[in-house]
Amino acid sequence: MKKAIEIGILGLGTVGNGIIHILEHHKNELIAKTGAEDVTIRKVLVRDLEKQRGGNVEKEMMTTNAEDVLDDPNIDLVIEVMGGIDEAKQYIEKALKSGKHVVSANKDLIALHGDELLTLAEENDAELLYEASVAGGIPILRTLTEGLASDRITKMIGIVNGTTNYMLTKMTKEELSYDEALQQAKDLGFAESDPTADLEGLDAARKMVILARLGFSASVQLDEVYLKGMTEVTAEDIDFGQQLGYTLKLIGLASRSDEGIEVSVEPVFIPEDHPLASVNDEYNAVYVYGEAVGETMFYGPGAGSLPTATAVVSDVVSVIRQIRLGTAAAPMNAANKEDTVLKKEEDIRAKYFIRLHVHDVAGAFKSLTSVFTSNKVSFEKLIQMPMDSEELAEVVMVTHETSRTNFEQIAKDLENLDVVETIKSRYRVEGGEADVPEQRDLALV
Amino acid sequence: MKKAIEIGILGLGTVGNGIIHILEHHKNELIAKTGAEDVTIRKVLVRDLEKQRGGNVEKEMMTTNAEDVLDDPNIDLVIEVMGGIDEAKQYIEKALKSGKHVVSANKDLIALHGDELLTLAEENDAELLYEASVAGGIPILRTLTEGLASDRITKMIGIVNGTTNYMLTKMTKEELSYDEALQQAKDLGFAESDPTADLEGLDAARKMVILARLGFSASVQLDEVYLKGMTEVTAEDIDFGQQLGYTLKLIGLASRSDEGIEVSVEPVFIPEDHPLASVNDEYNAVYVYGEAVGETMFYGPGAGSLPTATAVVSDVVSVIRQIRLGTAAAPMNAANKEDTVLKKEEDIRAKYFIRLHVHDVAGAFKSLTSVFTSNKVSFEKLIQMPMDSEELAEVVMVTHETSRTNFEQIAKDLENLDVVETIKSRYRVEGGEADVPEQRDLALV
Repeated sequence: MKKAIEIGILGLGTVGNGIIHILEHHKNELIAKTGAEDVTIRKVLVRDLEKQRGGNVEKEMMTTNAEDVLDDPNIDLVIEVMGGIDEAKQYIEKALKSGKHVVSANKDLIALHGDELLTLAEENDAELLYEASVAGGIPILRTLTEGLASDRITKMIGIVNGTTNYMLTKMTKEELSYDEALQQAKDLGFAESDPTADLEGLDAARKMVILARLGFSASVQLDEVYLKGMTEVTAEDIDFGQQLGYTLKLIGLASRSDEGIEVSVEPVFIPEDHPLASVNDEYNAVYVYGEAVGETMFYGPGAGSLPTATAVVSDVVSVIRQIRLGTAAAPMNAANKEDTVLKKEEDIRAKYFIRLHVHDVAGAFKSLTSVFTSNKVSFEKLIQMPMDSEELAEVVMVTHETSRTNFEQIAKDLENLDVVETIKSRYRVEGGEADVPEQRDLALV
Repeated sequence: MKKAIEIGILGLGTVGNGIIHILEHHKNELIAKTGAEDVTIRKVLVRDLEKQRGGNVEKEMMTTNAEDVLDDPNIDLVIEVMGGIDEAKQYIEKALKSGKHVVSANKDLIALHGDELLTLAEENDAELLYEASVAGGIPILRTLTEGLASDRITKMIGIVNGTTNYMLTKMTKEELSYDEALQQAKDLGFAESDPTADLEGLDAARKMVILARLGFSASVQLDEVYLKGMTEVTAEDIDFGQQLGYTLKLIGLASRSDEGIEVSVEPVFIPEDHPLASVNDEYNAVYVYGEAVGETMFYGPGAGSLPTATAVVSDVVSVIRQIRLGTAAAPMNAANKEDTVLKKEEDIRAKYFIRLHVHDVAGAFKSLTSVFTSNKVSFEKLIQMPMDSEELAEVVMVTHETSRTNFEQIAKDLENLDVVETIKSRYRVEGGEADVPEQRDLALV
């Protein structure tokens, strides 16, 4: 059993510098916590040796040659914070194959190739931990594998993308338009110059894949996620939801039941007094349902170099303990343990919010309700109000629980009605019953 | 290094039974996670051998003699779920002195004698873990010692008592009176037949002492907690707070700065869009500020036999790992590492809510404001409204931040004014700025 631990780091951006700072300033604690004799950083891979850096890494510790890290037999543990897919994957594979343990903060890579890399880790009796890849400042993966280790997780509802949550918060609380909110997110550096992966839900989907694999010990792939971004969300939708007591969030949902597993990312209405509805600005949260523990939620910053570095170091502590324990099975190597069956569309059940423009003629309302009746779904909330300067009425309904297929059929049938001018929007509703705010004039059915 | 782990359990109520169920049904996982060869329960201390029990504990495993657990050299780890103070303390001491590791769910005991027991554990190279003692279903102690291990925690705001949170939720959302809410909590089994320790904040204070010791590596005693229960909270106070955008919660607060440490339990107004304001019913949450990670929150059930059992088992996993690692320092043995200085009253700064009945005469308002001016504090929010059938006005103010001593002085000066009939209530305000809800008629100063 090795007693002094040596570390190699791939990448020296702000996260890498944060990690080095923490490892050096908390060395005694690290040693006390893990029982290691010493913990030292041996080599750091950088792109450019000449670049001025704020950190205190000595020059002789840096290298531009990955082999200096990956082929060094003294290095027990490699930390990957370089980002990107192909090169990072190749380096991690090489490290694992030579029996080195790996800690990665790379959600894109883990979401795409996590199963493969975890299998490779297992074959080589190496650890691959990746706490920082999901909701940086929230120790959610550790909680799933340790704190809730003896529980069976049945559902996770996550707000796992800071950019879109920031935008939706501004649209909700300051009534900004989509474009204004996006511009503000860009100005503040929350949104990248190409924010497509955030806005279309892909970033959130990657994180939900990682959570679902770990929480359900399942093998879920990115293309199995039902994906609907927030690009079509309007301020009006948010406002009508608020009138019914709901807050709109971009929600990543992973659930399992006897019928199988479902993973989705889409804008969802949540009751305004649900803990997730108060997760504002760039913050993240994951709401977890466990059979024994009941409902828990973990809230914190989703990104940022210091939160991410903190998460990486907590993985480093875990790995060193595992090295010292000599345990073979890594806690985050949970993939593929159970056969993974995806839920069929007709088994995915939820309430739905639908907003229509309806011609304000006699019998219009009866036509609408007949669609619901013939599809055997009733609605539990309804707003109807005349619109300015048109012969149209605005109608917003929230259904009782039904399957996604059935709701799609209802939407289609409504669209075919002569009295329906257009379906303006539709959203899934989660998180239980919303109290309708006082003094709002609704017909409750 | 011992490879097969044997466990003794003190107490066989619902939590004890839950633990046995989990240990037996997750044995393989436990072995895989810890690298132990086997994990078995050897003896269970019960009060009455003849009592019918729902669980599946064999009779030969049970004993009414504590020595059968404490003197058995084969037992490595003792789980204490019997409750109470004196007997439990005596048993735990005996276990620790013979080098056995201990996991306890006993918050009363840990809050009162934690420092002493942890020192004893350290002297005997034994572990004493107690995750279940604070907010049963929330792995908050593990998060403080592992997930946030490399961070410096500066403040924790907790809703850590389910009974009072249930009552305040009902008073806020259903406008129940204090007595109605208490009766409902009793009817539902949330409140004990003598709920004094809950209502007066003592139960919350015990948990905050445990959190403060661990989070700040400090030595805080129960009688150092500033304590004000919820027995004087009225529905009117809650209602006026809501008009200003605040929700009332019984808040346990632990903070530290250069001036020292502060631990308090009192009813506090929180902005209604703060994550803590959505912690409703019997749920608990702890909001943590860390220098690196920023703001995080951990939410879940505060009690219940299954959540508590889950927390105990997560400690058992930790202890077994520590046994196998041979590490001497236990992660939860953090007490006494730093000199503990309590903050002086004048260094404890907050905003305050104060509600007065004022004689509705000319110059009344000027008298009020002069008190604030002479004490050098301004107020940021104000409601003034006439009262029915009296010559009085209701005045509610929220101050800017000031010290507790200064606020006490202001309250005293206000009470001495002729125009002030009475001070109805006063509360601390935490969690940042509240948005004043629309359509509420306020003078904002």
